[in-house]
Amino acid sequence: MKKKIALTGDRPTGKLHLGHYVGSLSSRVQIQEDHSQFVMIADAQALTDYAHEPKRVSENVLEVALDYLSVGIDPKKTTIFIQSLVPALPEITLYFLNLVTWNRLKHNPTVKLEIQQKGYGEEVPAGFMIYPVSQAADITAFKAEVVPVGDDQLPMIEQTVELVRKFNRLYQTDVLIEPKAVLSSVARLPGIDGKAKMGKSLGNAIFLSDSPDEIAKKVKGMYTDPGHLRVEDPGKVEGNPVFTYLDAFAFDRAKVEELKAHYQRGGLGDGVVKKYLLEVLLSFLEPIRKRREELAKDPSHVMNILFEGTKVASAVAGETLREMKRSMGIDYFAH
Amino acid sequence: MKKKIALTGDRPTGKLHLGHYVGSLSSRVQIQEDHSQFVMIADAQALTDYAHEPKRVSENVLEVALDYLSVGIDPKKTTIFIQSLVPALPEITLYFLNLVTWNRLKHNPTVKLEIQQKGYGEEVPAGFMIYPVSQAADITAFKAEVVPVGDDQLPMIEQTVELVRKFNRLYQTDVLIEPKAVLSSVARLPGIDGKAKMGKSLGNAIFLSDSPDEIAKKVKGMYTDPGHLRVEDPGKVEGNPVFTYLDAFAFDRAKVEELKAHYQRGGLGDGVVKKYLLEVLLSFLEPIRKRREELAKDPSHVMNILFEGTKVASAVAGETLREMKRSMGIDYFAH
Repeated sequence: MKKKIALTGDRPTGKLHLGHYVGSLSSRVQIQEDHSQFVMIADAQALTDYAHEPKRVSENVLEVALDYLSVGIDPKKTTIFIQSLVPALPEITLYFLNLVTWNRLKHNPTVKLEIQQKGYGEEVPAGFMIYPVSQAADITAFKAEVVPVGDDQLPMIEQTVELVRKFNRLYQTDVLIEPKAVLSSVARLPGIDGKAKMGKSLGNAIFLSDSPDEIAKKVKGMYTDPGHLRVEDPGKVEGNPVFTYLDAFAFDRAKVEELKAHYQRGGLGDGVVKKYLLEVLLSFLEPIRKRREELAKDPSHVMNILFEGTKVASAVAGETLREMKRSMGIDYFAH
Repeated sequence: MKKKIALTGDRPTGKLHLGHYVGSLSSRVQIQEDHSQFVMIADAQALTDYAHEPKRVSENVLEVALDYLSVGIDPKKTTIFIQSLVPALPEITLYFLNLVTWNRLKHNPTVKLEIQQKGYGEEVPAGFMIYPVSQAADITAFKAEVVPVGDDQLPMIEQTVELVRKFNRLYQTDVLIEPKAVLSSVARLPGIDGKAKMGKSLGNAIFLSDSPDEIAKKVKGMYTDPGHLRVEDPGKVEGNPVFTYLDAFAFDRAKVEELKAHYQRGGLGDGVVKKYLLEVLLSFLEPIRKRREELAKDPSHVMNILFEGTKVASAVAGETLREMKRSMGIDYFAH
C-alpha cells in the first residue's frame, strides 16, 4: 500500500526548544516510520515578517536542520528541504491567489490575531496577509494528506481545503488532494515562566541545544506554585510547569505520581522536585545535544542533506505544478 | 554603449487591434532598433481576473504572438516570451510582497478604478489586488529602464520604483534598477462607436486580423458627427473617429487636410470620407493580415519563437533573482 504523505515545517527564526519537541518533533520521528514525510524549513514564510532581518532567517536554517537531525528525524526516511529553493511553491501560491478573495484573507482568524500581536494594524506586509495561501501551496504541492498541526493552525488547513476544492472544481480535475489536519494529542508545553506557551522569542524556552549549565540555571529559576511558600505547605500541581515537564519527559511514571502526591499534601520543597526535573531533562537532552555537537562539526554535511532533500522536494512540487498547469490548459510546450 | 533595456507586454485575452498598434505596437517596432527589448505575453497576469476562463487566455497566446510578428516585432531584435514560463517572476513577486503593506495595495488608484469597473467590490480576487507587485517583479526581473506605458499605468511604475528603492536600501545593494515610464505621445485611438477607448471586449475595435469584408462593414457603421445630417451641412472633425483614424493611418497628409476643410464647410458626405478611410485602412492592414495568415499556417514555428524567447527571458530573470537572493543572504548553495 502506498504510504500517506505528511507535511510539516518550521520557520527558521531561532533554534528549536522543548515545546517544539513535545508539540511536533517527537511525532515526526514516529510519522516517518509509516508515512512519506516532508519537513520544510520555511525560510520564505519567515521572511513575510522578518524581511528586515534576513540574516536571522538564513542563519537559523542550519540550526533548525541540526535540531531536526539531532532528535532523530532521519533524512533516509524524511525529506528535509528549504522552502525558498522550491520554485514551484511561489508559482502555485500566485495561481491560488486568483481563487481567493481579498475579503476572505482579511478574515482569517489566526492571521487577525497575529496582526494584533505584532501590532501591525494597517501596515501589515502584504506577504504576511497572504501567507495562508502560501501554506496552502506548500501543502498541496506535496499532495500531503496528513498535516499534524496545533489548533491555531486549523484555519490554514480549512483555507487549503477550500482552495483544493475550488481548483479541482474550476479546472475539472482531481490533481490536488484535500489535506487532513491531525491535531496534536499532547497539551502545549508551558514556558519556564509558567506562561501558556514556550516561545523562541519569549525568553522562556529551554532549547534542544542548551548546555547542561544553561538548563540547570533555567530549571532553578522555573516558575512553580506561587502559593507554595514553605516546604511544609501543600502545593499545587496543576499549572505548575515543573510537574508538566515531568509529565512530558520523565519515564518513571510511578515516581512522578509519588512526587505529585507528596507536593500536594505538603512537605516537599520546590528544590527537590526541580533537582529531579533537572536530572530527567539532562538525561533526555544529553544524547540530543551530543549528537547535535557532532553534526555541527561538519555543517557542509548537514547542508548537503538539505540540498539533496530540496532536490527531491523540487521534483515532487514541480510535477504537481505541471499537473496543475495541464488542468488549466497553460502547459504550452508540454506536448 | 550598452543598449537600454525596454519591457512591455500584453494580456492575452483577445487579438490585438488598431488601438494597440497606435498605442504601443508601432513604438515597439521602433524601440527594438536601439534597445534591448523584452515583450511579455502576460498570461499569468491575465489569469488574475480570468481564472475562470483559462482557455480564453491560453488560446490567445498564439494570437497575440501572431499579431506581434505580423506588425514587424522581430524575434531577432526583440525577446518575446510567455510570462507563466518564467519561474523567477512569481518568486520575485513574493519577496516584493513582503516589502509593501496591505494598505498601500488598497490605495493603488488604477486598481481601485478597475475594481469598480469590474464590479468586484469586496470579492476582488487577491491575485488581482496584488498584480501591481507582480508587474513590479516583471519590470525589475529584466532590469528594464524604459517602460513605455499609457498614463493609466503610471501608478504601476511608481509602485515599482518604490519597491526597487526599498529592496536596494534594505539589503544594501544596487542590483535592482529603477525604471522610467515613457508616456506614449500618440493620443489614444477611439472605438468605431466614438467611445474614448478602443477595447478588445467593447465590440468597437478593428482587429489587425480582420478580413477586408469585416473592415468594410466596421468602417461603414462607424460613428461620425451626429449633427452632420445632410451632405450640405457643415460637419465636425473633432471627436469624429473617421478623421482621427485618417490622422493616424493616412500617408497623404494634404489629402486629409483637404477632406477635413471640405467636411467642415459642408458638402462632403460621410460616405465619401469613409470610402477613403476604408482604402487607407485596407492598404495599411493588407500586408499585416497577409503576413499573419502566412505565419498562422505554421503555428509550431511561432510557438518555437516563443519557446526560444522564453528561454532567454528565464535566464535573464533567473540571474536577477539569484542576485536578489545573494543580497538577502539566502543563496545557501551558491558558493
